[in-house]
Amino acid sequence: MNCVEIKVRGYHLDLYGHVNNARYLEFLEEARWAAFEDRFDLKEWQQRGLSFFVVNINISYRRPATLGEILEIRTKLSHIGNKSGVLRQEIVLKGTDTAVTDADVTFVIADARTGKAIPLEGTLRSEFEAFL
Amino acid sequence: MNCVEIKVRGYHLDLYGHVNNARYLEFLEEARWAAFEDRFDLKEWQQRGLSFFVVNINISYRRPATLGEILEIRTKLSHIGNKSGVLRQEIVLKGTDTAVTDADVTFVIADARTGKAIPLEGTLRSEFEAFL
Amino acid sequence: MNCVEIKVRGYHLDLYGHVNNARYLEFLEEARWAAFEDRFDLKEWQQRGLSFFVVNINISYRRPATLGEILEIRTKLSHIGNKSGVLRQEIVLKGTDTAVTDADVTFVIADARTGKAIPLEGTLRSEFEAFL
Amino acid sequence: MNCVEIKVRGYHLDLYGHVNNARYLEFLEEARWAAFEDRFDLKEWQQRGLSFFVVNINISYRRPATLGEILEIRTKLSHIGNKSGVLRQEIVLKGTDTAVTDADVTFVIADARTGKAIPLEGTLRSEFEAFL
Repeated sequence: MNCVEIKVRGYHLDLYGHVNNARYLEFLEEARWAAFEDRFDLKEWQQRGLSFFVVNINISYRRPATLGEILEIRTKLSHIGNKSGVLRQEIVLKGTDTAVTDADVTFVIADARTGKAIPLEGTLRSEFEAFL
Repeated sequence: MNCVEIKVRGYHLDLYGHVNNARYLEFLEEARWAAFEDRFDLKEWQQRGLSFFVVNINISYRRPATLGEILEIRTKLSHIGNKSGVLRQEIVLKGTDTAVTDADVTFVIADARTGKAIPLEGTLRSEFEAFL
Repeated sequence: MNCVEIKVRGYHLDLYGHVNNARYLEFLEEARWAAFEDRFDLKEWQQRGLSFFVVNINISYRRPATLGEILEIRTKLSHIGNKSGVLRQEIVLKGTDTAVTDADVTFVIADARTGKAIPLEGTLRSEFEAFL
Repeated sequence: MNCVEIKVRGYHLDLYGHVNNARYLEFLEEARWAAFEDRFDLKEWQQRGLSFFVVNINISYRRPATLGEILEIRTKLSHIGNKSGVLRQEIVLKGTDTAVTDADVTFVIADARTGKAIPLEGTLRSEFEAFL
């Protein structure tokens, strides 16, 4: 599991004084990049023409987050199939188990030349399995 | 069904030259507001202290959208329960049936004083049912 | 002069219920693209490897804009030099002269291969001068 | 002077693979909040009904920032007048003096009840002067 912290600022909020729904997707993306650069050789991905593509996000908004709160974003792999995987991302108030948002993020690794999802096997699969 | 158009601009794109995942949630929100102001008396909502809250979004990314493409966002009600409803939102390339993104957006109408979801009944329910 | 309209939505607002400072830069960019595609052959720019780059923005926030207000964004060229120009962009409440925001946007046209600003001459200059 | 770091991610980029112009304003706002919470009693501001409002930003884009670069944002007070002040914010590549972006941000402190700028005097002035 990988953990990232973000402090809620005024520009994250919307009409209701809550973090906006769309902004959480940026928080989740931030956490994914942070998790990945710890575990994967992203330069090698680039050389091999591999891209990480999200194909589905199922996100539940549990409790509004407001100004000054510190959010902890936990990212782990919850499933890996032949050609796709699912990351489980949970946002909680820092140091508590108070759920703010959680999401299942289904992804594929695509070959930039063909645009097709490649099989998750070999080193790539092992690197992902290290999240489990 | 309500229909809104958005032209893809440079600032909507990300690393891959595609509209960013988070940005689609802004497009969907834009389309919901446009749909709602056509159908609901939003000033009355405000006076009654009612707020529209999204509790879940299940979004699938079907095909990347790129610079200059015109997106058509179709919004309709697909389900209405006692205390929650589901909007179906589909983004296609304008004038075609080429799916770009689609989402099921589950919502409640909350009373601002109690923070609780109110029953979807009476005029409110009729107004939503007009989407079906 | 070119004119674009944007309606203020909940996701444009910040902590204070006002359109966020950063968001105005997206509104201005939207208005520039809309103005440019009316006047320039952007496909030819792309073929010639030309890019529009902003080098300075001097933006004044005159009056907060809030939910539901309709903003009118006026874009015109206020100055053109040998290698750079200045666009004047004014945001007002629609149908009034109530100033919300105004900005001077200094730009260059760069050659993608060299990364250097090219002289604003010939057809390119004439096209810009049509804004004046 | 206060210093904040941000790593450039895919969702910060635009069409050209560079951090988008509007995004820098979010980076600058992030850095201002980080600087302020170190120096000011923001809870007391809230109790007194004081708000920080930006009235002008003059921002120069010096060098594009791209994926994976780490930006260092330096914030200091460069001028303080009777009713307004100017923050100088510089974004450089971390650990270097390579300028990416710099901005002069003119602000007032407004009283939420009257909406007017208050004089920068007493404790408030001393707290700001500590930046100089």
